[in-house]
Amino acid sequence: MFARIFPSEGKGFFDFFEQHAAKTLEAAKLLHEMLSTPGDFAARARRIQEVEHEGDEITHRAVETLHKTFVTPIDRGDIHRLITRLDDILDLIDATAERIWLYGITTVDQDAVQLAEVLVQAVTQVNRAMAGLRNLKDRNALIKICMEINRFENEGDTLLRSALARLFSGDKDPITIIKFKELYDFLEDAVDRCEDVANVLEGVALEYA
Amino acid sequence: MFARIFPSEGKGFFDFFEQHAAKTLEAAKLLHEMLSTPGDFAARARRIQEVEHEGDEITHRAVETLHKTFVTPIDRGDIHRLITRLDDILDLIDATAERIWLYGITTVDQDAVQLAEVLVQAVTQVNRAMAGLRNLKDRNALIKICMEINRFENEGDTLLRSALARLFSGDKDPITIIKFKELYDFLEDAVDRCEDVANVLEGVALEYA
Amino acid sequence: MFARIFPSEGKGFFDFFEQHAAKTLEAAKLLHEMLSTPGDFAARARRIQEVEHEGDEITHRAVETLHKTFVTPIDRGDIHRLITRLDDILDLIDATAERIWLYGITTVDQDAVQLAEVLVQAVTQVNRAMAGLRNLKDRNALIKICMEINRFENEGDTLLRSALARLFSGDKDPITIIKFKELYDFLEDAVDRCEDVANVLEGVALEYA
Repeated sequence: MFARIFPSEGKGFFDFFEQHAAKTLEAAKLLHEMLSTPGDFAARARRIQEVEHEGDEITHRAVETLHKTFVTPIDRGDIHRLITRLDDILDLIDATAERIWLYGITTVDQDAVQLAEVLVQAVTQVNRAMAGLRNLKDRNALIKICMEINRFENEGDTLLRSALARLFSGDKDPITIIKFKELYDFLEDAVDRCEDVANVLEGVALEYA
Repeated sequence: MFARIFPSEGKGFFDFFEQHAAKTLEAAKLLHEMLSTPGDFAARARRIQEVEHEGDEITHRAVETLHKTFVTPIDRGDIHRLITRLDDILDLIDATAERIWLYGITTVDQDAVQLAEVLVQAVTQVNRAMAGLRNLKDRNALIKICMEINRFENEGDTLLRSALARLFSGDKDPITIIKFKELYDFLEDAVDRCEDVANVLEGVALEYA
Repeated sequence: MFARIFPSEGKGFFDFFEQHAAKTLEAAKLLHEMLSTPGDFAARARRIQEVEHEGDEITHRAVETLHKTFVTPIDRGDIHRLITRLDDILDLIDATAERIWLYGITTVDQDAVQLAEVLVQAVTQVNRAMAGLRNLKDRNALIKICMEINRFENEGDTLLRSALARLFSGDKDPITIIKFKELYDFLEDAVDRCEDVANVLEGVALEYA
């Protein structure tokens, strides 16, 4: 509604969303790479941390702009929720990379690689959704993407479940279990946060129908 | 205020709240049963997961309706908070049941049973509160129920504390500790989420005084 | 804006914020003392719990007042967020003290002491910020304090990282690892919540510029 009255103001928020989502995808891909071809974990975790800082910067500018903008293209609260939820995903990707390096993990099992793969796919859909947000005329397309993200969240859940079952069923030592449990939990949590973003987006799509 | 002007619209939200709270109570009771009479955990966790999916369905329809309804009987944000907080309780009940099965837990101690009992009591009060929400004339009754829920949250806290003390004071092996610690944490977290619901309800009661 | 029209109403919220922040600082200092000069943990955890109950009382009165006040000096949602986020910090301080006592921890390492020190510093800034909130004319001062809090959050992060590295690199037994990992996580989480408060404050400062 507001967007129709003042069509030019506040459009920059869509740029922030797209830029941040692109950073998040970059980090997710780096994490997936890190897990599928182990080695040199310290340097690679540091690279992901740099991307995370770049994302922080975008979040900070988005929040600052939000408080200076009188007329916003979508609800202020939704803008704030979208940018902070996006940032939660990126934070968790960074935390996961850091833990791998910190815990001196050297070989990663297939469960973690698959979880990271699902994360890349979910974040890819988040990127598509952010691009779709700019033009809310095709709201059905946006809702479809959100449903895709929910599907990945379910897949992440299933993967976590089998990863945990495998982790506890073997004869692994407790310290290894503590480390890998945290690794899986972080990865699945990151996919969960994609669903948080999808929930906000779904709300926006329905509101501006 | 709005409800007085357009008394008939949006009343369906109270139905969603009551339906969801009923599902949550059903799941809490199944979990309590599962813990107090162990055995056949896989099938029983699956049954709870079915109830959780039914709850998801109600949540989804409530959110969809919210975005299509122009005039709501109580604040839109409160409606959204209530239905998502209710869903958090149900999610945690499901996650608890799943972990029991996943971790191959076969015997459950009295601490977990008691925590599940407190959860059933807290969710029972949540159900009473949801029924009371429809008629806000007796707001004191509603506030009293919220205080009851807070009391159960404190009881849950005390139970968690003694459960953890017992868990760590014995000579249990670390892997058992990891498993049971998560079980207790999930149960207590579920009771905590009942308090989140009570906090929103208390706000609604005070606002519409 | 509203505050200018009805300057006298709702000013009591600033009292609640300052009172609660003072309680939180008291608890943070007690926790730091507890960690730096170990001994008599049960009694000292109980003392912190008393302070936490006093904080709860203030939160409860603030929320009640909020729902009875028609005109608020800053946005209702921000008031609610500020008081509940403050309460989250205090809850975590209490939970940390309780765990130390509960887990029968008798000697604490330097990592935990340093984390508690950073927490005291972050909460000290939260107190300064709360005092500054009353007079929003100097909003730059407020934003500067928020940046200070963010700096402490980064410091907490760095400390947690080295604490975890040390915890896992030694030959500590798994149960000790579980206990101390929770202790560090709780402490760092408490510092994180200070940043949540800073984020809300930053928003308020920008909004009322």
